Amino acid sequence: MDHFRRIGQLRRRLTKAGLSGLLVTHPPDVRYLSGFTGSSAALAVTRRAARLFSDGRYTAQAPEEVEAAQVQIVSTSPAVSAVEWLAAQPGIELAGFDPAWTTVADLARWKAALPFRLRRTFLSALAAPPVEPLRCIKDEDELSAMTEAALLGCKLFDHVLGFIWPGMAEIEVAAEIEHRARLLGAEGMSFETIVASGARSALPHGRATTARLPRRGFLTLDFGVILKGYCSDMTRTVHLGTPRDKERSAYHAVLEAQEAAVAAVGPGVRCGDVDEAARGILRKAGLADAFSHSTGHGVGLEIHEPPRIGAEQTTRLVPGMVVTIEPGVYLAPRFGIRIEDMVAVTQSGGQVLTPAPKALIEL
Amino acid sequence: MDHFRRIGQLRRRLTKAGLSGLLVTHPPDVRYLSGFTGSSAALAVTRRAARLFSDGRYTAQAPEEVEAAQVQIVSTSPAVSAVEWLAAQPGIELAGFDPAWTTVADLARWKAALPFRLRRTFLSALAAPPVEPLRCIKDEDELSAMTEAALLGCKLFDHVLGFIWPGMAEIEVAAEIEHRARLLGAEGMSFETIVASGARSALPHGRATTARLPRRGFLTLDFGVILKGYCSDMTRTVHLGTPRDKERSAYHAVLEAQEAAVAAVGPGVRCGDVDEAARGILRKAGLADAFSHSTGHGVGLEIHEPPRIGAEQTTRLVPGMVVTIEPGVYLAPRFGIRIEDMVAVTQSGGQVLTPAPKALIEL
Repeated sequence: MDHFRRIGQLRRRLTKAGLSGLLVTHPPDVRYLSGFTGSSAALAVTRRAARLFSDGRYTAQAPEEVEAAQVQIVSTSPAVSAVEWLAAQPGIELAGFDPAWTTVADLARWKAALPFRLRRTFLSALAAPPVEPLRCIKDEDELSAMTEAALLGCKLFDHVLGFIWPGMAEIEVAAEIEHRARLLGAEGMSFETIVASGARSALPHGRATTARLPRRGFLTLDFGVILKGYCSDMTRTVHLGTPRDKERSAYHAVLEAQEAAVAAVGPGVRCGDVDEAARGILRKAGLADAFSHSTGHGVGLEIHEPPRIGAEQTTRLVPGMVVTIEPGVYLAPRFGIRIEDMVAVTQSGGQVLTPAPKALIEL
Repeated sequence: MDHFRRIGQLRRRLTKAGLSGLLVTHPPDVRYLSGFTGSSAALAVTRRAARLFSDGRYTAQAPEEVEAAQVQIVSTSPAVSAVEWLAAQPGIELAGFDPAWTTVADLARWKAALPFRLRRTFLSALAAPPVEPLRCIKDEDELSAMTEAALLGCKLFDHVLGFIWPGMAEIEVAAEIEHRARLLGAEGMSFETIVASGARSALPHGRATTARLPRRGFLTLDFGVILKGYCSDMTRTVHLGTPRDKERSAYHAVLEAQEAAVAAVGPGVRCGDVDEAARGILRKAGLADAFSHSTGHGVGLEIHEPPRIGAEQTTRLVPGMVVTIEPGVYLAPRFGIRIEDMVAVTQSGGQVLTPAPKALIEL
C-alpha cells in the first residue's frame, strides 16, 4: 500500500480546503494513511510533515509498520499530543478535525490542551470528511486485497454447504465458517456471523443462536472475513428440504432484484438508481414492504463505508468504489431471504467479486 | 436482568443532576438499560417514560427484547427521533447527553432537528457519564454471566494446552480457541485473540499471525469470550521447551506482581494502590521499564470499562466491580510475559473469576 501517495492526496485536499494542518484519529483513517494497525493512535498532517502519535504498547510495532510518517510514542493521550504538536508547528493557524469521529468530550479535552490564545480558533470542524473520499475509491492494492477477501468468503460458503445438516445448531455452522476462515488466513470476521434458520431467517440481523436447523426451511448465511485489514461481506440463503411454491417464488424475486441491481452498477450511476433497480422488481412482486432496508453499502477497511445504496441517494458511483448489493425480503413469522455480493465499480460497469452460486440451493 | 430497576436507578441520578430527560445512544448503555442487543438504537428516558427508537431491521427483534421501555421503529435516525420525542414531552426543558459517546457531528444534527427556540438550550452535555457508574457495579445476574464467561475462558485455555505443538502457526492456535469457544456457546470473542510466540511475545498486542511456534520460547495467549453479552478476558504465558534462568526469573517476577495486585483488590482500595502493588514488585526485580502499561481495567458489556487500574488512579474500588489484573514485562527483542485474571470486588476483598493455573507451564 502506497502511504506516501495517500498522504500526498490528502495534502492536496487540505490545501484546497484552506487548511494548514489536520488531525486524524479514526483508526481506519489512520491505518489507510499510515499503515499503522494498532488501536491507539493519532496522525497529525501538515503541508510539510506527518507524525503518528501512539502509546507505549506500540513502541515496537509502530515504527515497524509506519514509513510515511514520523513516529512518536507518548505516555499521555496520542490525540492530545498530536494537537499540541500541531499548535507548535510554524505557520499553522488552523487545524481541521473530522466531526464524525470526534466526540464532544474529545474536543473539549483538545481545546483545553491548547494555549489560551488558540483555544477558540485553532481547531476547525471540517464540513466534509477528509479521508473518507479517498478511502471510497480503492486503489489496485486494495482491490486485490478485497478480491482475495471476497474469494475466501466464497470458499467458506462452498465448504460449509457440505457441513450443514438438519438438527445442527446455528452456532455450529457459524463456528465451522469462522474456524475455517482462520485456518485459511483470515485475521478475523468482519462482523458477527449471521446464521438464521427457519422462521429466524425473517430477522435481517439474526445472529447465530443455539436454535437447531429445521428439516425444512430457509437458512440465511451472512458473513465476512478480514484479510490484510480489508473486509468481505456476502450473503447466501439456501433451503433445507423442498421449498413451497411461495418460498420458491419469493427467492426468485429476490434473486432477480439482486441481479438487476448488480447490472445497474456502473460509473456515474446514482446510488438511488441502483437501489431502485432492486426495489422496483420487489415492488412488482408485491414484496416492497418486506424489503425493509437499503440495497447495499460501501465496504473496505470498515464493513460499512460510504456510499449508501439506498432509496433516493444522489451520490454517483465512481470506478474503484466497492459496494455490496444485498436486497432481501422478511416475511415474519414465516421466512426471510437475502442474497448479497460485493461489486467493484469499473470504468465500464460493475465487477462481481463474489462468484459463489446464487441459484436456489436445496440441501 | 432487571431493566426496570436499572432505569429506576438512572432516573434517581437524573433527578439529582437536575435533568428531566436523558438521551442514551452508546449501544452497551442502551443494552444495559433496556436489554436491546441490536446495533442501531437510541433510548430516551424522562421521569415518567422510557422509549427506545430503532430502525426497520429490528421491527421483530426490538419488541421481543425490550420490556422496560416502549419501542418505536423509525425510518430516519433513531437518535434524531429520540431528540424530537424528548423535546415534545410536556415539562422537559433540558435533556442530557453523554459527551463521551456523542460526536460533534451528531450533536449538530440533533440541534438542527430541534425547534429553533430550543436549539441553544435543550441539549446539555453531562459533566459525568450517566450510565457508566451504574454499569461499573455489576448486579448478581451480571456477576453470574461474567463468572460463566471467565470459566469458559479457563476451559478454552485447558483445551488448547493439549493442542499446542512447535511448528504450528499462531493462527491455528487462535482458530482452535475460537472454534471451541463457539461450540461451547460463546457469542463471539471479546477482542482479537492474541497469540504471540517467541520474540513476538514481547509485543503487548501481538495478534495471531502465520508465524510458527518455536521449539523453545514463551507463548502468550490473551483472549476472551462474549457470553450473554458479557466479556471475559484472560492471559496466560506458557513456555515451549525448557526456559533459561532469566526467563524463569522474569516469569516469577510477573507472577508475584500479579498475585500481589490480586491480593490488593478490596472495597475502598484506590486503583493506583492496586497498580503499585504489581509495579513495586517489578521495580524491585529491575523490570519497571519493561512493564509499559497499566495493571488492568474494568470489564463487563465492554472489554474495556472503568475503572482503570493504573498508576496514581484515585478511584476507589467498590463491591460489584469486576477488573482485570494483568501486569506484564516486554523485553524486546527477546521475550515477553503477561498473566491476567478477572477479579470481582467483594465486601471483604477480591474474588478471582479465572481459576486457571498460573505456575509456569513448560510444554
